[in-house]
Amino acid sequence: MSIEPLTDEERADALDALPDWDYDDGRDAISRSFTFPDFSAAFAFMTRVALYAEKHDHHPEWSNVWNRVDILLTTHDAGGLSHRDVAMAEAIEALAE
Amino acid sequence: MSIEPLTDEERADALDALPDWDYDDGRDAISRSFTFPDFSAAFAFMTRVALYAEKHDHHPEWSNVWNRVDILLTTHDAGGLSHRDVAMAEAIEALAE
Repeated sequence: MSIEPLTDEERADALDALPDWDYDDGRDAISRSFTFPDFSAAFAFMTRVALYAEKHDHHPEWSNVWNRVDILLTTHDAGGLSHRDVAMAEAIEALAE
Repeated sequence: MSIEPLTDEERADALDALPDWDYDDGRDAISRSFTFPDFSAAFAFMTRVALYAEKHDHHPEWSNVWNRVDILLTTHDAGGLSHRDVAMAEAIEALAE
């Protein structure tokens, strides 16, 4: 199934709605860093994100160093940001609270 | 608790025993990339590594993109490679099989 990239207007609206996420122009991606009290909390968060990712068949590019998790979202099949990334960013925000 | 870095001889022996790991001279670290059939398998592996990490209070620097997991090991408290990294690399090898 092909996925459409966001239009310029959709992208601008999405970025307005996700003020804590950085936009990577070169990759047409969004990224955010999350910090937790310790590794256990960080990996618990990652596990919940992984379950979301698998359920929605949309997976992050991410890294972890102890209490920190850096997440980058883009849609390879769309060649850049799609509605899937926006939905996932919103879900991740909720999981991180 | 302070942890001693490996001596040059210990490091050489460790690298000989871990032929699939790359040595990062600048960071005095070892790294390896693992590839799995899919994200589910990759994250299952990460979960087992996370349990090891938490149990031994020694945590990797790692990243994941779908079926791929890149792991870097070094011991911040030792300023470089320590016996903890060697033990963890061996444990990770066993978990990845």
